[in-house]
Amino acid sequence: MGTRLGALVERLGGQLVGDANLEVSGIAPLAEAGVSHISFLSNSKLRAEALQSQAAALIVSAADDAFIAAGFSGARIVVANPYVYFARAAQYFESLTAVAPAPGVHATAVVAASAKVAPSAHIGARVVIEEGAVIGENAVIDAGCYIGRDAVIGADTHFFANVTFHARCQIGKRGILHSGAVIGTDGFGFANEGGVYIKIPQTGRVMIGDDVDIGANTSIDRGALADTIIEDGVKLDNQIQIGHNCHIGAHTAMAGCVGVAGSAKIGKYCTFGGAAMVLGHLTIVDKVHVGSGSMVSRSILEPGQYTGFYPLAKNAEWEKSAAIVRNLSTMRERIRALEKIIKTKTENNES
Amino acid sequence: MGTRLGALVERLGGQLVGDANLEVSGIAPLAEAGVSHISFLSNSKLRAEALQSQAAALIVSAADDAFIAAGFSGARIVVANPYVYFARAAQYFESLTAVAPAPGVHATAVVAASAKVAPSAHIGARVVIEEGAVIGENAVIDAGCYIGRDAVIGADTHFFANVTFHARCQIGKRGILHSGAVIGTDGFGFANEGGVYIKIPQTGRVMIGDDVDIGANTSIDRGALADTIIEDGVKLDNQIQIGHNCHIGAHTAMAGCVGVAGSAKIGKYCTFGGAAMVLGHLTIVDKVHVGSGSMVSRSILEPGQYTGFYPLAKNAEWEKSAAIVRNLSTMRERIRALEKIIKTKTENNES
Amino acid sequence: MGTRLGALVERLGGQLVGDANLEVSGIAPLAEAGVSHISFLSNSKLRAEALQSQAAALIVSAADDAFIAAGFSGARIVVANPYVYFARAAQYFESLTAVAPAPGVHATAVVAASAKVAPSAHIGARVVIEEGAVIGENAVIDAGCYIGRDAVIGADTHFFANVTFHARCQIGKRGILHSGAVIGTDGFGFANEGGVYIKIPQTGRVMIGDDVDIGANTSIDRGALADTIIEDGVKLDNQIQIGHNCHIGAHTAMAGCVGVAGSAKIGKYCTFGGAAMVLGHLTIVDKVHVGSGSMVSRSILEPGQYTGFYPLAKNAEWEKSAAIVRNLSTMRERIRALEKIIKTKTENNES
Repeated sequence: MGTRLGALVERLGGQLVGDANLEVSGIAPLAEAGVSHISFLSNSKLRAEALQSQAAALIVSAADDAFIAAGFSGARIVVANPYVYFARAAQYFESLTAVAPAPGVHATAVVAASAKVAPSAHIGARVVIEEGAVIGENAVIDAGCYIGRDAVIGADTHFFANVTFHARCQIGKRGILHSGAVIGTDGFGFANEGGVYIKIPQTGRVMIGDDVDIGANTSIDRGALADTIIEDGVKLDNQIQIGHNCHIGAHTAMAGCVGVAGSAKIGKYCTFGGAAMVLGHLTIVDKVHVGSGSMVSRSILEPGQYTGFYPLAKNAEWEKSAAIVRNLSTMRERIRALEKIIKTKTENNES
Repeated sequence: MGTRLGALVERLGGQLVGDANLEVSGIAPLAEAGVSHISFLSNSKLRAEALQSQAAALIVSAADDAFIAAGFSGARIVVANPYVYFARAAQYFESLTAVAPAPGVHATAVVAASAKVAPSAHIGARVVIEEGAVIGENAVIDAGCYIGRDAVIGADTHFFANVTFHARCQIGKRGILHSGAVIGTDGFGFANEGGVYIKIPQTGRVMIGDDVDIGANTSIDRGALADTIIEDGVKLDNQIQIGHNCHIGAHTAMAGCVGVAGSAKIGKYCTFGGAAMVLGHLTIVDKVHVGSGSMVSRSILEPGQYTGFYPLAKNAEWEKSAAIVRNLSTMRERIRALEKIIKTKTENNES
Repeated sequence: MGTRLGALVERLGGQLVGDANLEVSGIAPLAEAGVSHISFLSNSKLRAEALQSQAAALIVSAADDAFIAAGFSGARIVVANPYVYFARAAQYFESLTAVAPAPGVHATAVVAASAKVAPSAHIGARVVIEEGAVIGENAVIDAGCYIGRDAVIGADTHFFANVTFHARCQIGKRGILHSGAVIGTDGFGFANEGGVYIKIPQTGRVMIGDDVDIGANTSIDRGALADTIIEDGVKLDNQIQIGHNCHIGAHTAMAGCVGVAGSAKIGKYCTFGGAAMVLGHLTIVDKVHVGSGSMVSRSILEPGQYTGFYPLAKNAEWEKSAAIVRNLSTMRERIRALEKIIKTKTENNES
């Protein structure tokens, strides 16, 4: 099952140079593409490699097209952004073979009487949906998911198997939640009385916009009093922790293992590398990019790229540098002492 | 649904200054409280803000009361610790509206013949309870949980949906386990023979005290031979990993993403910031506070606050400082060389 | 239920010095072993402690045997590697008491018509197995697991309760997956168009070899186009994240909370301490050992031990050292200035 190049370009745009009737079966990286594949050149450094590709057609930028045209005998699709075009083409090929889950509720699902499930939605085996929950049109809730009381799931949203989505939380349209994700668990809120913790009830919700993806085994706390907010287009990878009352701006992305403590306010169009950490009650403005393994311990009020991790070294070298780091103030004192001696000597010489 | 101020004070204590018959519907932060809410002043820095609050009543400390009394026209509840009082009041308001799950076993639950479930316990849809397990009075086991063979769940303990609690592990009274938590999974124990790992059976248990909360997607390993111990009042946030044979002292709290390697012995009343890490086979005494993102690589034998993470900087600055950190021993050598030259010169001059 | 020393040695090898008819009931650490236990001395530093053990028999190396023989009155089993022998003996004792799960499919499991389940396999309560999946001989799939379409589970592999194993992924023989593990979730792949993320379909698989253990709440992404590969004998602890298209070489072990970004290629016989992080698209050769909390940000092309974390200190000391780290380039400038002055002075003196 595949498509003709002409049909692809008609659907996704781009300028086709070559045979519109050529059948292609799928998309593959430059080196792995066979004669029935299309491939893509998203990085000009790979131009030479692209000429060696067996692909039937290449997706290229206008900037790379002259070079490719001179040395590549297959078809070309010239586009503004080859990587984005690749993503859309891959989505299209996937749609050709995807098995759409049948609408309806599996016989083993447990759906409360007052829950409202759209007729076009798919509810898999062993799903539990509590009273008052609402499942939108064409939503797909795979096996073993749990949907709490009065939760709202938007149209075309897909929960993979074994997602837990707690009471009163909401997610918009076209969201994807991966297995093991837990949305709306209690925030970590306690008052301390003589060393003993008294639980503060967590009565807020998690409110998630449209087009949000949440990774496997990621957890998002419900707000303590107000809500935790995840705006449109946010992408969260696996194993992430978002504390209560956080606010994550639209189109911000976080890689795996990131942790965000409670009440952090993060702007739009930010990115966080894997295992980056954000302390609570601070503000990060739009377009901030935090590197992997870096700890944000103060507010960041200026867009840009921020980093903070200890550089890796051979263990013996690290032992040495870490020992000095522990005593940096001693080193500073020694420099000060030297400066003072030099200054005294120089003054003496000058006098 | 709400309560009269008089009823609240009768139940929770504190000195009411104002109308005991005033109805309040709930609790809210200073800035968000409306005329039917009570609010609280737990930080004297917010005194001025408190005076602007629309709240019907304020919970205040004796120290702040004179200031508030002079400028706030609503009622006051004067208490020893406003934040603790807030927690208890919030619990009370929650109890007024909470829907208590009905006692009994859902028709789709699978309960082994020899398991003992208290008649007052609630067992949700799709729960599986294996042979010999014991579920205490008023325990609530939500949908999809798994309770292993001979496990023991204390009275009034609540498992949210999709908790996994393995064979022979025990938890006391009033515990809360959040979704995705896995208790009693095998510890990471292997013997290495010529590069190949031979599994060491993990035959210990996880023994958890009373009033313990465990967050979403947190995992606690069973002991290898002896047990992993979590004492009373411990609070663990989400995404935490506790290795086999750890011992965590009473009323210790850990924020999200903390990892504790095997056989660590942690004292009472400790706190661990988010993503703090503790290596195995070490000891941390009572009342140690470890900052977020900090790695405990040696025993800590003195109470206090400990920290260790690389400070965040703009990426270009970090690149510079990290390059120097890599070569700190060179810098130290240069200082030594300077000191030697100065010393020689000084001695020459003196001679 | 126990075994005679003679039977143990017949099964596992080693040279028995003592009564072959002695019954032992299990294995325990030196200090905890009672008169019906065997124990083991895997570290010569514990020789003196071993002499105090109440154990009926000790597993010792040839190197330690003379010392032990002189002071210990119980039996000895002299072996090449006491710790490996302990692991095997513990496995043997466990096998004596383990309750083998009965072959067959639980009445509440949902198994698709075209799935192939070996008659000797055990399928627990509430398991869901999708179309085309294959479950090998003697496999044990505990309650609540989800096995996706066309997935393949090898013989003697054990999934603990609530594992999610997605479509088309494969695992070999004798694997162990712990609760909450998610295999074959979508990788984190997006193209960015004007700030908005366009999802790249993740159509590869996760291919897992034989004798692989995967910990609780660990997630492994399926490949984007090609597959994610986990070779034979890999051991992954809890809370680990493996990105799409990673390749992890045979007999590599990772402790809890490790994160590996996409397309990292990791060699054989490596170890990663807890919370170590590996950036994407880099290469780590065989026999590399990365310390806990350390970030691998570049390829490692030489075997050895690598570390990189900020040393813990009392908070006040850390504040001081971190402030200097932020300004290390200033310190370097001051040293350069001193060197220049000294050099000038020396040259002047010499001229």
